[in-house]
Amino acid sequence: MAAWLLGINTLEIQPFKLPPLGPHDVRVRMKAVGICGSDVHYLKTLRCADFIVKEPMVIGHECAGIIEEVGSVVKSLVPGDRVALEPGISCWRCNLCKEGRYNLCPEMKFFATPPVHGSLANQVVHPADLCFKLPDNVSLEEGAMCEPLSVGVHACRRSNIGPETNVLIMGAGPIGLVTMLAARAFGAPRIVVVDVDDYRLSVAKDLGADDTVKVSTNVQDVAEEVVKIHKAMGAEVDISFDCAGFNKTMSTALSATRPGGKVCLVGMGHSEMTVPLTPGAAREVDVIGIFRYKNTWPLCLEFLRSGKIDVKPLITHRFGFSQKEVEDAFETSARGGTAIKVMFNL
Amino acid sequence: MAAWLLGINTLEIQPFKLPPLGPHDVRVRMKAVGICGSDVHYLKTLRCADFIVKEPMVIGHECAGIIEEVGSVVKSLVPGDRVALEPGISCWRCNLCKEGRYNLCPEMKFFATPPVHGSLANQVVHPADLCFKLPDNVSLEEGAMCEPLSVGVHACRRSNIGPETNVLIMGAGPIGLVTMLAARAFGAPRIVVVDVDDYRLSVAKDLGADDTVKVSTNVQDVAEEVVKIHKAMGAEVDISFDCAGFNKTMSTALSATRPGGKVCLVGMGHSEMTVPLTPGAAREVDVIGIFRYKNTWPLCLEFLRSGKIDVKPLITHRFGFSQKEVEDAFETSARGGTAIKVMFNL
Amino acid sequence: MAAWLLGINTLEIQPFKLPPLGPHDVRVRMKAVGICGSDVHYLKTLRCADFIVKEPMVIGHECAGIIEEVGSVVKSLVPGDRVALEPGISCWRCNLCKEGRYNLCPEMKFFATPPVHGSLANQVVHPADLCFKLPDNVSLEEGAMCEPLSVGVHACRRSNIGPETNVLIMGAGPIGLVTMLAARAFGAPRIVVVDVDDYRLSVAKDLGADDTVKVSTNVQDVAEEVVKIHKAMGAEVDISFDCAGFNKTMSTALSATRPGGKVCLVGMGHSEMTVPLTPGAAREVDVIGIFRYKNTWPLCLEFLRSGKIDVKPLITHRFGFSQKEVEDAFETSARGGTAIKVMFNL
Amino acid sequence: MAAWLLGINTLEIQPFKLPPLGPHDVRVRMKAVGICGSDVHYLKTLRCADFIVKEPMVIGHECAGIIEEVGSVVKSLVPGDRVALEPGISCWRCNLCKEGRYNLCPEMKFFATPPVHGSLANQVVHPADLCFKLPDNVSLEEGAMCEPLSVGVHACRRSNIGPETNVLIMGAGPIGLVTMLAARAFGAPRIVVVDVDDYRLSVAKDLGADDTVKVSTNVQDVAEEVVKIHKAMGAEVDISFDCAGFNKTMSTALSATRPGGKVCLVGMGHSEMTVPLTPGAAREVDVIGIFRYKNTWPLCLEFLRSGKIDVKPLITHRFGFSQKEVEDAFETSARGGTAIKVMFNL
Repeated sequence: MAAWLLGINTLEIQPFKLPPLGPHDVRVRMKAVGICGSDVHYLKTLRCADFIVKEPMVIGHECAGIIEEVGSVVKSLVPGDRVALEPGISCWRCNLCKEGRYNLCPEMKFFATPPVHGSLANQVVHPADLCFKLPDNVSLEEGAMCEPLSVGVHACRRSNIGPETNVLIMGAGPIGLVTMLAARAFGAPRIVVVDVDDYRLSVAKDLGADDTVKVSTNVQDVAEEVVKIHKAMGAEVDISFDCAGFNKTMSTALSATRPGGKVCLVGMGHSEMTVPLTPGAAREVDVIGIFRYKNTWPLCLEFLRSGKIDVKPLITHRFGFSQKEVEDAFETSARGGTAIKVMFNL
Repeated sequence: MAAWLLGINTLEIQPFKLPPLGPHDVRVRMKAVGICGSDVHYLKTLRCADFIVKEPMVIGHECAGIIEEVGSVVKSLVPGDRVALEPGISCWRCNLCKEGRYNLCPEMKFFATPPVHGSLANQVVHPADLCFKLPDNVSLEEGAMCEPLSVGVHACRRSNIGPETNVLIMGAGPIGLVTMLAARAFGAPRIVVVDVDDYRLSVAKDLGADDTVKVSTNVQDVAEEVVKIHKAMGAEVDISFDCAGFNKTMSTALSATRPGGKVCLVGMGHSEMTVPLTPGAAREVDVIGIFRYKNTWPLCLEFLRSGKIDVKPLITHRFGFSQKEVEDAFETSARGGTAIKVMFNL
Repeated sequence: MAAWLLGINTLEIQPFKLPPLGPHDVRVRMKAVGICGSDVHYLKTLRCADFIVKEPMVIGHECAGIIEEVGSVVKSLVPGDRVALEPGISCWRCNLCKEGRYNLCPEMKFFATPPVHGSLANQVVHPADLCFKLPDNVSLEEGAMCEPLSVGVHACRRSNIGPETNVLIMGAGPIGLVTMLAARAFGAPRIVVVDVDDYRLSVAKDLGADDTVKVSTNVQDVAEEVVKIHKAMGAEVDISFDCAGFNKTMSTALSATRPGGKVCLVGMGHSEMTVPLTPGAAREVDVIGIFRYKNTWPLCLEFLRSGKIDVKPLITHRFGFSQKEVEDAFETSARGGTAIKVMFNL
Repeated sequence: MAAWLLGINTLEIQPFKLPPLGPHDVRVRMKAVGICGSDVHYLKTLRCADFIVKEPMVIGHECAGIIEEVGSVVKSLVPGDRVALEPGISCWRCNLCKEGRYNLCPEMKFFATPPVHGSLANQVVHPADLCFKLPDNVSLEEGAMCEPLSVGVHACRRSNIGPETNVLIMGAGPIGLVTMLAARAFGAPRIVVVDVDDYRLSVAKDLGADDTVKVSTNVQDVAEEVVKIHKAMGAEVDISFDCAGFNKTMSTALSATRPGGKVCLVGMGHSEMTVPLTPGAAREVDVIGIFRYKNTWPLCLEFLRSGKIDVKPLITHRFGFSQKEVEDAFETSARGGTAIKVMFNL
């Protein structure tokens, strides 16, 4: 059984025929699947960025489960192993794959990115090398959280976060929060989080932000808000993550970052942006782009194992895998409010 | 005597009192000084970016000359040496200087950036370590051209141009042309230059562009122009230099560059830009900013010495250093047209 | 038919059963195969580094040929295409592959590295993505030369060779020569080549070295030879390639390289080395290691197509593919002397 | 008054005439000065590496104190400020300085490196930009410890230590210990320390090593000790620091490090080394050299302020600044044993 996206606002649990188990594959019984903003977007609009759902598609891609069967040549895993799944299968034949940037592979097959089926299902078949064994002290739900956490980890890696980089986070939604947790785990000495919403800022504070700044949605306020941000930081802003992706947030990030710093664009609010790009460039503030992640699961699992990152507080709501609960879960996630991560327990 | 900027459209040759010669300084008799777009901008508006001319200021910063006197501890130069001058004196006490990014020094004293006097003068006093001896086969005019060429060299360095990077240049003005010459010297296998003007494109072709694409100023045409650019390149665009800095040129650069490539923003047309930043970032196309240059003179001189770069065709007009000629020279430069680089011979 | 290594000094042409053609594979009729030093080493000793030939093995790995058949899903090639073959098939499942360092893959299957068969055969089956179409103006022999050239290209890439790096090459054997050609193509402004042999040095000079220095094999002479090298360079040595790999050559490279420079160890003469490692490290001269290459074929073919590199003068001897000629060819290669690259035309 | 090195084993407290206070200088009353291994070396032999003491020289360079007077243009400090001193004054005119590698400056003037006087004195005059204000919760002794800690920090920076690099430390002397502390602060998830001495290993364990391995001085044991190291690590060794610098330690480091990893040579035991350099290079294990440090004081102070590093346990012995105590202190430091860092309180 799997959760099929059949049309706008139409999700139904229906049978799903597993593909055959190849020699390098494993069959995994899904135990924990989280809902991502993109899942909700597909449900509401049947599209996300340039991708369009044209045929019924199983949804879901943040997941962990238990190995049930392994392919003929798989040695790294055995039935019973608890694993977190990296959702994308790249081609390994194109230049980008060979250069180590497989996340940019044009032939990528990624859970729940049309026309590829997702993982909100009782079982999936997946390559063994994309299934990462969980340390004993890491739960299956935490395993599923490796996917959103990977976005933050990849953003921190591309931006060279370390003990010398003071970090500004624009936006305290789920992506802002995982980026904040990752930046802390990479050693950022001081992190300031900015949002328009008091509740979200309080969550950021609870999860470890050194300080927060509440801002307006009015782009006229950028200059004075930058002053507040600098004051909250008590130091220069070395790297800013725009985890919202709007004109206002990007303008603030570009203006607040020190000469020679970087702005990493993680959120995807606006497609076309109107921002002070030239003054930023003239201070050699580079703008770094991010697409998903690569090679992040081992590091995420190490962060979870060691306790450098605790993702459990992000899981605010849990649902079972019935038709009714699936609908409720997506509605809860779509509503936002106090919901950060909504998780299925299968 | 020096060319003083006294007010809008008012340049006058008047006496200039040289500062004292410090132990690490040299006194240089100026022989060749070029006119930069920023010089013209100051003449027309008394400002450039955030800098404002509030008191009379000597103009000019692209220059070369002959050593007349050396400070007490200077060993690298002797009177009679022909030198090109790097115009900016940084503090060497701030973090940015110490980290090797002295071009971003907040205490920078730069020729003809208010309130610092420039070098369109019979003589200047300058630190010896910023005066670079010309190889025998490099003329004083070519020495003065190291300054604009340095912008292209710095842009290529920050963008990692080499024999594996196909390069797109947006804009065939003086900065586009020096960036093209530098990209070629760094080994770029294929360079396509884009502009709205047939004459400029013909110059780019003469100076070594592999192909050129004429475009409109209409931002609606980006998609179809990108197709033309890709066809002209016959390969993927690895790095794009926006040497104009307008919404249209930046949008084209962001759209044309391959996943994992870079766009380097060199020109400064628009301050606030409206561009498809998010789709670019989602292909991990980074936007690299540029401010002036650092450590470029030795490499520029090597490029000129070896013949890897020939800047002589860029020098289209020459003037002497009388009141009348100074006025004519700036007018020629401001008019554009066939004028690429206007040079004073003092 | 293929050239089988059956024992020490025993090569025989015998039938070779092709493996089945997989969906991503191509079948290639071999046309040009070069002899590498490692091939000779296997013939003389049945071993090379840690690899030991325990069963009969087809030899050869520097090769190019013509596509005869393509697998069911191959779209990039058609029968009749002329291609150069990258010899190593990596696993794409290990960390090193996924990080883009597939040359270090512990599961690598590489032509003529036991127990994997090589390519000195009438036909081979190989993955399509490791067969690179030759530009029209690049011959099959030049295609085969991409393999040794790749070693030089990989060394230059890892050492960041460009227009600002003056290069010292220790050793003017085949690897020294291809490294020299690659360094020039990457833009090295000045290259000095060092060897003990006049003939080799004259070849290096003919192929483009700016200067050469003849040295002894006596390690006592390092200090005075470094003086000669510096004089020949006329500048600081930024990067040294040790293409011999002996105590003497490595000591010279470490001593000659400027503070902050690099020594790249390409040759493999001595395994254990006695060298002044500490004084080098105390000047922050890093020692860069090299193992084969990765992602080099497209660049090699571009260098050959554009004429930035001409490998034809390296091919000094040619043989056909009869039992007698195979024996003669290997003897010629083993003898050294004026033989640089010995090539089979099949 | 200052501690003058007058001859082998001859240190005397004698008057020291302060140089004049320049406009960018400060006068500092020394409060804490540590003894470095190089200080002891100079005392025993009048030399260290290539430096030779030819005239009486004030010794000492690990220091902190209180500002007594500031030069005419100094704005960053006022009398009464507690500061740690970076000991080296570079020229800022050479290529290495301008490129940001000022630690390699050939004109460097460094405390107690002949012929430059050191800082074991009641007062010194030093450039203000090399005096770093101590956070309130960092003591003057901890300030003095920034100097040895800087060696570890610089080694970790050049080796890219972070949350993905498991670290092997060869040698648990003072340099091994500060490198371990720095590696932990940079996020190294697992650190194994190796030494021949049980006491030193117990100190390393107390200071945070995840595991330790006791080894012999016999180079024959490398292979089996590497097995023990791998077992203690429980993972691959990504980066090794050789903080001893002997044939045995370097051979172990080269052999233990994974393909694609790095060995950073920090210690300086042997000058010429006999090590398996080629097998290391053939796995692309780069050897990174280290000379002193650059731009490390702000990061050291942040590590101390935040508690990410605690250097206090390293300070095992304290002495006052009388003739008798100076002699005793150096003898204590030279004897080794339980003495890690010997500190003067002036």
